[in-house]
Amino acid sequence: MRYQNRPSGLVRLDRNESPFDIPAEVKEEAVRAMLEREWNRYPDAEGEGLRQDIADSLGLGMGNVVVGNGSDDLLPEVITMFRRIYVYEPTFEMYRFFAEKHGVQYVPVWLSPEFRFPEPPETGSGDLLVVCRPNNPTGTEAEEDIVLSALERGTNVLLDEAYWDFSGHTMVEKVSDYPNLMVLRTFSKAFSMAGVRVGYLVASEETASRVLGRRAPFPVNVLSECVARAMLRHRDLVRKTVDYIVAERERMEQRLGELCVRSTTNFFLVKGDMRERLAERGILVRKLSGRLSEMSRVTVGERRENDAFLEAYLELVSGAGGRLAGP
Amino acid sequence: MRYQNRPSGLVRLDRNESPFDIPAEVKEEAVRAMLEREWNRYPDAEGEGLRQDIADSLGLGMGNVVVGNGSDDLLPEVITMFRRIYVYEPTFEMYRFFAEKHGVQYVPVWLSPEFRFPEPPETGSGDLLVVCRPNNPTGTEAEEDIVLSALERGTNVLLDEAYWDFSGHTMVEKVSDYPNLMVLRTFSKAFSMAGVRVGYLVASEETASRVLGRRAPFPVNVLSECVARAMLRHRDLVRKTVDYIVAERERMEQRLGELCVRSTTNFFLVKGDMRERLAERGILVRKLSGRLSEMSRVTVGERRENDAFLEAYLELVSGAGGRLAGP
Repeated sequence: MRYQNRPSGLVRLDRNESPFDIPAEVKEEAVRAMLEREWNRYPDAEGEGLRQDIADSLGLGMGNVVVGNGSDDLLPEVITMFRRIYVYEPTFEMYRFFAEKHGVQYVPVWLSPEFRFPEPPETGSGDLLVVCRPNNPTGTEAEEDIVLSALERGTNVLLDEAYWDFSGHTMVEKVSDYPNLMVLRTFSKAFSMAGVRVGYLVASEETASRVLGRRAPFPVNVLSECVARAMLRHRDLVRKTVDYIVAERERMEQRLGELCVRSTTNFFLVKGDMRERLAERGILVRKLSGRLSEMSRVTVGERRENDAFLEAYLELVSGAGGRLAGP
Repeated sequence: MRYQNRPSGLVRLDRNESPFDIPAEVKEEAVRAMLEREWNRYPDAEGEGLRQDIADSLGLGMGNVVVGNGSDDLLPEVITMFRRIYVYEPTFEMYRFFAEKHGVQYVPVWLSPEFRFPEPPETGSGDLLVVCRPNNPTGTEAEEDIVLSALERGTNVLLDEAYWDFSGHTMVEKVSDYPNLMVLRTFSKAFSMAGVRVGYLVASEETASRVLGRRAPFPVNVLSECVARAMLRHRDLVRKTVDYIVAERERMEQRLGELCVRSTTNFFLVKGDMRERLAERGILVRKLSGRLSEMSRVTVGERRENDAFLEAYLELVSGAGGRLAGP
C-alpha cells in the first residue's frame, strides 16, 4: 500500500491527522530533553522509559506495554502470532496488507449496510479477531458487548484504539481481566504526532512479554521518545484538540445531514467518490475502494478547512442533482 | 534477542557505538530543520527526501535506495524474500533471529579457525547469501573476489556494510552491475547515530522497487530524517571519527599483540571470556557465545576509555598466567 506525496498549500483532509501541530513551547521542551541525550548511544533496548510513562498514564505496569515505530510497527508482530485473522470490514487496509505479506489467512467479517457490527465469529486457538474501535474508515463503533462476548468465549482479540480519544470509549483496562485481549494505540492522531511515529500495544504481562520476545531491540529512537514523553505531560493539549475536533465534526455532520455517516472519530464518510473533483479545488479527501468506492473519507480539520470542504462538497453535490450513491 | 540496559558512569565498549556524540552545532542544525517541519503530519511515505540525499552521496538515484528505522528494520524485509539464507558464521546474531522468526531456513557457512572466509556455497534461486563485510564480531573481512564470484554465479547476495567506513572497502557501486546484490548500511556506527535509528538498503532500481513494494509507509520519522540529512552535510565529521577510531584500534592491537584478532572495524576480538571480570571494574565489553564463547568483543572508544580497558584487561590476563583460550 502506497501513499502519494501531498503537495503543500492544500487543505489536507485525507490522512486522519490532527490539524494542529504541537505548540512551539512543547516542541522546545521535547528538544531540551533530546539535547540531554546521547544520540550516538543506542536507546533503551525496549523503550523502557517511554513504556513506564505510558503505563503510568494508564494505571498499569511497564510489563503491560510494548512500544513501536508507529502502531504499524506493532501490527505485524501481533498478526503473525496467528494463522488466521478475522477482520470486521470495511476497515483500515493495513491489516490485510500485513496478513497477505506474512501469509496469514485473512477472513473479512462484513458490517451491515449501515456499518453496524455483527456478532463476532466462532474462532479457534490459532485465530485472532481484529476490531478497529472506533472503526476506520466508517467512523462507526463496535458495541462493547460484542467485544466482551468474543473475549468471554476465549477469542483472541486485537482492539485497535487509534481513534478512541475522539469517542471516549476504551477497553484498555480490561487487559488485566483478559489475557486474550491486546489493545493497540497510537500517538499519531489525538496526540498530533503522525510525523514522530510512536505507537504502543497494551496487554496482560504474559501476552506483552510474548510480543516483546519476538521484537528486535531499539524500536523507538531517542528523539521520538522525548516527544512522546513530553506530550504525555501535556495531555491537557490533547483534551483541547479532541474537544475542538469533536465540536467541528458535529457541526459538519449537522450541516451535511443525510450526506454523511455519523462518526465517533476525527473523520467521517460522505456520499460520492469526490476525491478528484475536490482535489481540483485544492481539498484533499481520501478515495475509498471496494464496497466504499462510491463514498469518500473526510478528516475533520481546522474550522476554515472544514468550511472550505463544506462549501466545495455541497456545491458539487447540488451540481450532481443529488445523484450520489451512499450507505 | 535482548540487550541489557546499561548503567551510566561506565566505560561502554560493548555495543560498537561511536564514542563521540554529534557535536552541539550539528545537533542545533538538525533541530532547526525539525522545527520547520509539521510534527502532526505524516512524513514522506517512503522517506523520499532522505532517500534522495543518500542517493546523491553515493552518486546513485533515489530509486536505488530504501530507508528504514535502523538497518534492523530492513533486514527482515530482505530475508523474507527468500526461502533459505546462507550466512558466514560467526556473525551478527540478528540474521539468525529474523530468519528463525519468519521461518526462513538458516544455513551457517563457517569461517576458518582464523576467521577467514571460504568460497561461497552453491545456491538456488530461493537462496540468499549474507556477507557482513567487514564482519561483526570477528572484525575480519571477506575478500572482494569471494563476493564477486558469488555475484557472477547469480547468487543473491546481501552485503551488510554496517562497518565499511572503518575498512574503507565498499562494493556499493556494484549494484548497478548486479541486480542480485543488495547492500545494507547504517547511520548507527561511523555517523554517531545509534540513538537516532536510520539505516538504508542500496540495490538496483528493480530490486529496490521490489523491496519498497513490501514496506509499510512512513519508516523514518521527521526528526530522525533531519538528523540523517544534517550528518550527510557533515561527512567531514564522520571522516574525523573514523580516522580517530582506526588510529586507536591500531594502537590497541599493537599493544595487545597475540591477545587480539586484527580487525578492519571499530571493534576487535580479544582472548578470554572477560565480560564479568571487566564489568566489575566498570568496563563493559561484549560477551560472546558458541564458537566464540572463550573470547570477548571490544569496541574502540575514546583514548582514555581504551587505556582503561587495556590496563584492566592486561592485568587480568597476567593474573591468569596466560591461560586464555583464543582463535
